[in-house]
Amino acid sequence: MSDPQVPPTYDDVLAAHARIQPYIHRTPILTCATLDRMSGAELLFKCENFQKGGAFKARGATNAVFSLDDATAAKGVATHSSGNHGTALAYAAGRRGIPCEVVMPRTSPQAKKDAVRGYGATVIECEPSTSSREAVFAEVVARSGADFVHPFNDARVIAGQATCAKELFEDAGPLDAVIAPIGGGGLVSGSCLTLSTLSPTTRIYAAEPANADDAHRSLKAGHIITDDAPQTIADGLKVSMKELTWHFVSRHVADILLVSEEEIVAAMMLIWKRMKIVMEPSSAVPLAAVLKNHDLFAGQRVGVLITGGNVDLDRLPWTSA
Amino acid sequence: MSDPQVPPTYDDVLAAHARIQPYIHRTPILTCATLDRMSGAELLFKCENFQKGGAFKARGATNAVFSLDDATAAKGVATHSSGNHGTALAYAAGRRGIPCEVVMPRTSPQAKKDAVRGYGATVIECEPSTSSREAVFAEVVARSGADFVHPFNDARVIAGQATCAKELFEDAGPLDAVIAPIGGGGLVSGSCLTLSTLSPTTRIYAAEPANADDAHRSLKAGHIITDDAPQTIADGLKVSMKELTWHFVSRHVADILLVSEEEIVAAMMLIWKRMKIVMEPSSAVPLAAVLKNHDLFAGQRVGVLITGGNVDLDRLPWTSA
Repeated sequence: MSDPQVPPTYDDVLAAHARIQPYIHRTPILTCATLDRMSGAELLFKCENFQKGGAFKARGATNAVFSLDDATAAKGVATHSSGNHGTALAYAAGRRGIPCEVVMPRTSPQAKKDAVRGYGATVIECEPSTSSREAVFAEVVARSGADFVHPFNDARVIAGQATCAKELFEDAGPLDAVIAPIGGGGLVSGSCLTLSTLSPTTRIYAAEPANADDAHRSLKAGHIITDDAPQTIADGLKVSMKELTWHFVSRHVADILLVSEEEIVAAMMLIWKRMKIVMEPSSAVPLAAVLKNHDLFAGQRVGVLITGGNVDLDRLPWTSA
Repeated sequence: MSDPQVPPTYDDVLAAHARIQPYIHRTPILTCATLDRMSGAELLFKCENFQKGGAFKARGATNAVFSLDDATAAKGVATHSSGNHGTALAYAAGRRGIPCEVVMPRTSPQAKKDAVRGYGATVIECEPSTSSREAVFAEVVARSGADFVHPFNDARVIAGQATCAKELFEDAGPLDAVIAPIGGGGLVSGSCLTLSTLSPTTRIYAAEPANADDAHRSLKAGHIITDDAPQTIADGLKVSMKELTWHFVSRHVADILLVSEEEIVAAMMLIWKRMKIVMEPSSAVPLAAVLKNHDLFAGQRVGVLITGGNVDLDRLPWTSA
């Protein structure tokens, strides 16, 4: 892998998949008759909530960590992350046996902080805004000299996330559409890279909370628009795109669909009740969008990316009234 | 299938599997590195929480319903059930298009009552004791003439439940032990029938709440001992064995392991947190027993039956303090 600031190619995805396979799960694809009936579509849920560290982020982080030469790796890795990327980097660093520091908003779910520490990494807290996160992180890197693995604006990370859509396409067969939640856009970018190569006719949708609609507004405007500290239950989706993810999203995404907080909670409860899986609010955003946009998906085979399963079980949206 | 009061044979299991396959899921087997580390064993979780109707009970109920000749089927089916068997019979009757009445304790989780009604069957409430349930049920059958599909003391049901261990053995390969929760003993009996045929060296354990330890005491005493209205969070395990299940349990079960209510809740939370699956308290009893009896299972390949996933999500044991 060359410069992490140059857009990856599909050859990078193939190399990433070979590199990370010993350390990640090939996650199952689940279906649900009730949700098919409600949506009028055939929904194929790629369950990255079952992934190592509880989220798809293990793919990109593991690819980045195992791409490092030994001398660089010895100085460790560091990142800022609203949660799952931090856990994933901690997991990958633990598997390689190198140090890892993670800057996280102090408001992140306790389960996510515990998970980072559980893999042997260090948590450094910041305020829940993009500006605070970046300032605190700059101090960390200046001190340790660690390799910065950005949560999404990094070619190694995007190539890793791209292996998720690769497995989905290989295991599920032809798909009319794929839909994933969008925060910084790493998973969506990886999906664009994979599907534009393997299945150019598959339409790629992103789904986003209306309360954090920066990606939607960016796509309409034709340039990146950022939010600072938006409020949404989908805490993994508060960040905004950067150059590398904008590169893929602006070229390949058919539309970015918006849903309300209530629609996110309703979709999350439906998945828990009917599919019997534990997943986090961010992962419910695509189903909410599919149910809200019936005519866009009815009669089609649709891949739905369930991105993660890390929630505080004693602070669920339908019990903590 | 002949008399439902004569113990089924393995030929009945083969016939059942062929009969029910169009209507049930071949559920996945999940593994979890964290739980392997905690137990010292290799645990293979057969996930019947993903089964139709949310529990393994769909297997036995579907076998019973599709075993009926047309004339008998036309009069419908009826049962009493603390929950999942009622849902399963409702599901199976709905697939065959025949009437179904289910007598349920009024204290059953709302989610289970809703599920029965959702499949088009009728719920008739009774008090939460074995005696009340049997009295109310006698009235129902006298009125409708429906075929009684007992939740477990029925050869058709046991042969159906036996397909669960058959799939586990076929998909997981050799197993040193299998452990399942025991209430009336239908799933354990089916597991005995299958494993004593396919893998006689596999040890079969049952796990039971200490608060409802009738099966444990029965095995020690050498005859059936019943409880009336025991109190446990594992609401699917309150019933006692009857002749047919005692037939299998008394011959094939190595031991019945007891766990406390606190151990059940802790195991349930572990499974939700680490495996990211939604399952009910009864299904956590086997893992609680494995963790409590480390030396019995360490170093072995152990099949663990996750029996169901039907819980009221707004009344979880760790939130409804």
